[in-house]
Amino acid sequence: MKLGVFTVAGGESRVGRMEGEVVVDLGPGRSVLSGVRDSGRGREVPVSEVRWQLPFPVADYADFYSSLEHATNMGRMFRPDQEPLTPNWRHLPIGYHGRAGTVVVGGTDIRRPHGQRRAGDFGPSQKLDIELELGFVIGTPSRLGETVPVERALEHVFGAVLLNDWSARDIQAFEYVPLGPFLGKSFATSISPWVTTLDELTRVPGVEQEPEPLEHLRIENFAYDVPLEVDLDGEVVSRTNARHLYWNVAQQIAHLTSNGASLRAGDLLATGTISGPGERERGSLIELTWNEGPFLEDGDEVVLRGEPLGEVRGRIVP
Amino acid sequence: MKLGVFTVAGGESRVGRMEGEVVVDLGPGRSVLSGVRDSGRGREVPVSEVRWQLPFPVADYADFYSSLEHATNMGRMFRPDQEPLTPNWRHLPIGYHGRAGTVVVGGTDIRRPHGQRRAGDFGPSQKLDIELELGFVIGTPSRLGETVPVERALEHVFGAVLLNDWSARDIQAFEYVPLGPFLGKSFATSISPWVTTLDELTRVPGVEQEPEPLEHLRIENFAYDVPLEVDLDGEVVSRTNARHLYWNVAQQIAHLTSNGASLRAGDLLATGTISGPGERERGSLIELTWNEGPFLEDGDEVVLRGEPLGEVRGRIVP
Repeated sequence: MKLGVFTVAGGESRVGRMEGEVVVDLGPGRSVLSGVRDSGRGREVPVSEVRWQLPFPVADYADFYSSLEHATNMGRMFRPDQEPLTPNWRHLPIGYHGRAGTVVVGGTDIRRPHGQRRAGDFGPSQKLDIELELGFVIGTPSRLGETVPVERALEHVFGAVLLNDWSARDIQAFEYVPLGPFLGKSFATSISPWVTTLDELTRVPGVEQEPEPLEHLRIENFAYDVPLEVDLDGEVVSRTNARHLYWNVAQQIAHLTSNGASLRAGDLLATGTISGPGERERGSLIELTWNEGPFLEDGDEVVLRGEPLGEVRGRIVP
Repeated sequence: MKLGVFTVAGGESRVGRMEGEVVVDLGPGRSVLSGVRDSGRGREVPVSEVRWQLPFPVADYADFYSSLEHATNMGRMFRPDQEPLTPNWRHLPIGYHGRAGTVVVGGTDIRRPHGQRRAGDFGPSQKLDIELELGFVIGTPSRLGETVPVERALEHVFGAVLLNDWSARDIQAFEYVPLGPFLGKSFATSISPWVTTLDELTRVPGVEQEPEPLEHLRIENFAYDVPLEVDLDGEVVSRTNARHLYWNVAQQIAHLTSNGASLRAGDLLATGTISGPGERERGSLIELTWNEGPFLEDGDEVVLRGEPLGEVRGRIVP
């Protein structure tokens, strides 16, 4: 199922199921996680008439860094004299917390953020970028102090979205040592208007993990076969696939809860930028242009697409 | 006012106002931000009979790094061959997002987290530590795309809490490059059971900031005079004061929103560890013992105290 929250002509928020060109109205509600998601039939509304809202209130937003190719590219660019992967990278799916309160529904305009681009130099970001990601939505919580076994982790996942983790590279570069990304990312994160339940995704074998993960992260590696593309002002600038990811979502959940941290319904776990091995398979402009630019200009519209997840859209405004 | 959420004998959650040894019952509710906080009189309940709950649902939790002495101590320990402060430190109040879903009310037992202490070495943290902090609670939201001027930032603050940002130093050390703290902190963060409104804090001049902050962060520096102590199993091991902080909460809010990020009611902004200039004025065990330990043992109880904010308590369980 593809479930979203919509309004028609300024009316109340309703939960709906996407079925091709129509949305089946399942009743009033502000979250696809609220239980209003049976398979019953309701009024059908043409997709062209609905206005999408955020499909669920985001509890905690964690963003991982699970593409080997992306992490390697970033390391090569920023630490050219060192091993591109940090020593922890192959031992755990590293990640950080992002700002849940600024996750917006696809279609929302993205205002170019201001920030310190260098010491004492404050102004609009000159290196505004995208990050092509999948996000997984937790539907079933876990308790504080409980660890979720890797082989049962998917039982906590309700579904997936496409996600654009907008990034201001100049702001990020100045701020991120030693506490990680903060204002370079926190101005907005866009997700696709509907959540696709996990049963609609095609599971495929994942890449070989070397070294073998520790016991609590050990599972036959898998990935989801989601062909992806990045469309910039009508031109496809990258094509890749979520199957390239090194760490899978079950491992991310097992890792996240391995210290006893709890999951809440509405937690959003993003994969990190998805890049493939080829030069046109990269999921960010900084990788596609090897930090030379161009980055996003005002007025640019970015559409990330990946069936069956749909698309996530955003236009840059000054 | 000091406002909290409590139950008596397993009954419903109620909002209450602390008045010395009694709690004035202001009515049913799960959040001190919900409006149930007039100054009227209700039933009085002895403090000894109430069970405290989390005083508000935490929206986003951001943790700063605003003590010059703490940042300098950490730099000296971990990067002894470099300048202790990173190049960004004096130009902006650096921070990161923590896990909102694992903020717990003071008095909750803290389970020792497991994690990777070195590559391939998974087990209970052997360097479990505290961080003595204040937290500020947002009561008045701001809109996405709006920046909050530094001189109006306090209008968004409802009040303050004491906060213990429990930290597993071994897990943190292995994971934190390049994305910052994650599982080393996300297992639990304790806050005092009640929120003290800002009008009860004594404002004092802050330390001189050098260089002068950029225009959007420029305000006559101030701090709050909150004498603080760290009690470990009945012995006070550190005494310091929140007035030592370099960056103030108005600057933190102006910085946080300078990229257009919104504030929500329930956002929690923590100061970062508060250390003073003296060797017994440090707000973490890693600083007090210069990374030699001892760190926290199972059964240890830590109480952070700071009038008028009260105390935040936690006992380590295996």
